[in-house]
Amino acid sequence: MTHISRIASVLARRHPEIEVRPGSTGTAAYAHDAGTRPRVAHPDAPGPTVAFPATVEQVQDVVRVAASLGVAVVPRGAGTGLSGGASADVGQLVVSTDRLDRVLEVSPADELVVVEAGVVNADLDAHLAPHGLFYAPDPASYETSTIGGNVATNAGGLRCAKYGVTRESVLALDVVLADGSVLHTGHRSVKGVTGLDLTSLFVGSEGTLGIVVRATLRVRPRPVARRSLTAFFPDTLRGAHALVALAATPVRPAVVEFLDGPTLRGIDAHSGSDLSARGGSLVLVELDGYGIDEQTRDLTAALAAAGGTVRVESPEDAAHLWHLRRHGRGVGRGEPRWFVGEDVAVPRSVLPDVFAYLPELERRYGVEASAVAHAADGNLHPLLSRPVRADDAPDVVPPDLAEAATALVRFAVAHGGTVSGEHGIGTVKRDWARLELDDVALRAQHAVTAALDPHALLNPGKALPVLEPRTPLDGPVPRAAPSTHPDPVPTTV
Amino acid sequence: MTHISRIASVLARRHPEIEVRPGSTGTAAYAHDAGTRPRVAHPDAPGPTVAFPATVEQVQDVVRVAASLGVAVVPRGAGTGLSGGASADVGQLVVSTDRLDRVLEVSPADELVVVEAGVVNADLDAHLAPHGLFYAPDPASYETSTIGGNVATNAGGLRCAKYGVTRESVLALDVVLADGSVLHTGHRSVKGVTGLDLTSLFVGSEGTLGIVVRATLRVRPRPVARRSLTAFFPDTLRGAHALVALAATPVRPAVVEFLDGPTLRGIDAHSGSDLSARGGSLVLVELDGYGIDEQTRDLTAALAAAGGTVRVESPEDAAHLWHLRRHGRGVGRGEPRWFVGEDVAVPRSVLPDVFAYLPELERRYGVEASAVAHAADGNLHPLLSRPVRADDAPDVVPPDLAEAATALVRFAVAHGGTVSGEHGIGTVKRDWARLELDDVALRAQHAVTAALDPHALLNPGKALPVLEPRTPLDGPVPRAAPSTHPDPVPTTV
Repeated sequence: MTHISRIASVLARRHPEIEVRPGSTGTAAYAHDAGTRPRVAHPDAPGPTVAFPATVEQVQDVVRVAASLGVAVVPRGAGTGLSGGASADVGQLVVSTDRLDRVLEVSPADELVVVEAGVVNADLDAHLAPHGLFYAPDPASYETSTIGGNVATNAGGLRCAKYGVTRESVLALDVVLADGSVLHTGHRSVKGVTGLDLTSLFVGSEGTLGIVVRATLRVRPRPVARRSLTAFFPDTLRGAHALVALAATPVRPAVVEFLDGPTLRGIDAHSGSDLSARGGSLVLVELDGYGIDEQTRDLTAALAAAGGTVRVESPEDAAHLWHLRRHGRGVGRGEPRWFVGEDVAVPRSVLPDVFAYLPELERRYGVEASAVAHAADGNLHPLLSRPVRADDAPDVVPPDLAEAATALVRFAVAHGGTVSGEHGIGTVKRDWARLELDDVALRAQHAVTAALDPHALLNPGKALPVLEPRTPLDGPVPRAAPSTHPDPVPTTV
Repeated sequence: MTHISRIASVLARRHPEIEVRPGSTGTAAYAHDAGTRPRVAHPDAPGPTVAFPATVEQVQDVVRVAASLGVAVVPRGAGTGLSGGASADVGQLVVSTDRLDRVLEVSPADELVVVEAGVVNADLDAHLAPHGLFYAPDPASYETSTIGGNVATNAGGLRCAKYGVTRESVLALDVVLADGSVLHTGHRSVKGVTGLDLTSLFVGSEGTLGIVVRATLRVRPRPVARRSLTAFFPDTLRGAHALVALAATPVRPAVVEFLDGPTLRGIDAHSGSDLSARGGSLVLVELDGYGIDEQTRDLTAALAAAGGTVRVESPEDAAHLWHLRRHGRGVGRGEPRWFVGEDVAVPRSVLPDVFAYLPELERRYGVEASAVAHAADGNLHPLLSRPVRADDAPDVVPPDLAEAATALVRFAVAHGGTVSGEHGIGTVKRDWARLELDDVALRAQHAVTAALDPHALLNPGKALPVLEPRTPLDGPVPRAAPSTHPDPVPTTV
């Protein structure tokens, strides 16, 4: 009898108040996140055991039991991740934060909230609206993803152009560590330098250092004004160069999104819109705050000087455009296709080079390539695809497409960028992460991880490439080998 | 022959190109930082050995030699710290970053600079001005302190009200680790989530994890407009309550400083100004950016509603007021006094409680208390003092003053605040840090430190209270006992 098969019964006996679903076909959904769901359903595939603690103490109890049985723990929010960070083997215990869904405090005077990890991003924002406040980080999954998951991945979104990523909104965390103790990091004050900045260390750690159970988050007053502008350019490259020109203005929009020509055509095909009739690429901007007319004037001048056709959109048209940007990339219609969605980030000046490289990728690898970008951050979401062919293996990304994707990641890293701007490494990007992390960096990463989770109990094998045992940093123990979970390529973006 | 007495000769033999000053009375200044200089000079006291590497490779060489001899390394920028973080025993090797003073790159398009650690904050800003850019973090020491020191302490300043502390301006670091290897963290892109956020971990680590040798920093366009406002209030508490009222407006000034009544009187006595004739406390604000008239209107309304007498200051008057704020607190005139300068931070709503508590401290401990605050951040710099008495020990803070200071720190921590908003823990605040870090937090802090510096080579005993060996986190080694360096109380603020 393996330990995982015992964990449900041990938990039921010792902690009957905690809801636990033993591994079965009914928990199969917990084997994957949104990025690693197999293309072909396997109706008989069993899932992992899943625990649903409803209090911090219950999370501690679950972790202690798992540790005592040597069962690895996979923390999970809404499972909206795109890199496999919340995927779990049948031999692992998923700890869901679904029941930790309370907003514990809203303090307008201190511009902070205290929430449990399972609170949904959009629900928090709705909770704040009556107070005239908002929570800035808005990942694409904001309608369903949880704060705990946002913290674990250091989620970005559109508004981080002005307001920063999740890290910039986290003041303090409560984290259940691998030994079941609760670590309090940070404070309720904005500033604080007592000890190492463990708050930032946990943000983006993908569940490998501890389970975030509570967060004290910085919130902000809703801006006095918001305004959306479009600038259409004759082609993709003219638009990409305009993004660089924007750096020369002092305007700092809340959102700067860039949609290339193929993306506009895909949206039109999917949504019946006419964006591609208006131009060959689109810079879509949201301004906010004081001096909205002055901001509009300076931004319009810069975009027009760069060759754009600029228009201030009505609130209704703006809402429609933002909906199209968030929801319609033209994926999923027509012939069956393989898709690989990427998440590289580059210095902003490199954006035109990336967009010039996409057609080269298409020629060299026989794929189609398009990209949207959170342009102010240099964060691109390229989409590479090709039709499914009869001789393709069913659940493995075709080698030609994988090679094209790797080439693009190499391009970004070689230009001072990164493998992942906001989605995280999970299991899907472990090999790519090795392109960015040299031996010294990888040893340091593993050393810090092992310091807080010496037995690799928490989300083992995620977030970092394997460290060869022959090159440990002076002292610490390398983490265990990665999970054997198969990782099909992400098919959503 | 001890190892420290050999290190100068070993370095001279192996690396003659590196400037090294053997420990002598000529290096006595390196035994202290600005916060731990003894009140009474000891002309015969020898200082530590000091190395002045001029390249990253030379830093690596110095660290390797020190490691081979088992000599602890104390990284040092300009020595302007106020918590003893750069203080060194005669048995330790100071590694100065003085010769690492090059600005390596300015990229306006990517809004970043690459600098060596020894570049002075103000020199960087001057370097950026012709490009229309500025570097936001502006600690009080900005005219002399270095970027490396700013990074090591996560320095704050006045402008972090709007632009964040040093952490928010650091994109990437090159760090020499305890084994002499160079760790590259971060990237040139704004976003990036590959692996743990080691960049943030090194920011504020006070030289205990590695020696920062290069930094890639985010810079910003100079604002289109700047405007300074004063709001004088009848007394300290009315002013402090106005700070809370500001949270209800959507205006986010670049700087919000608060000067209480005793501070205004001290400045007047020191500088011949007439601030206290204008009111009993002062909220001094700098607005910047777009919509400066709208911002002025909304802020003026809020401050006036809170009982303030508001005035837009001319650029000349504003410059004089900011000079008074930065340079004149009335310290150092008149009878000899003991001073303790603190650096607590609290949630902004607690600011009135802190200012109400200061007179209570005065009564209970027989001290005088005043405070300025970086008010938008809730970061206070209280100044506690009393006259020197004949029976005071010469270099030890009097117990009554120390108790008053500890009471204030306890007050801040009990209200969700922190021991140190921006100065760091160093040696001076190690005991106070224990008020904030519980056993779990302290074990986690030491575990992470030991993971990167397993032999406690780098700045041992700084930044963290000692961890009792009986309570290690599962696995890691606690750091060595703190240095035996005596730490007089800071006398500057």
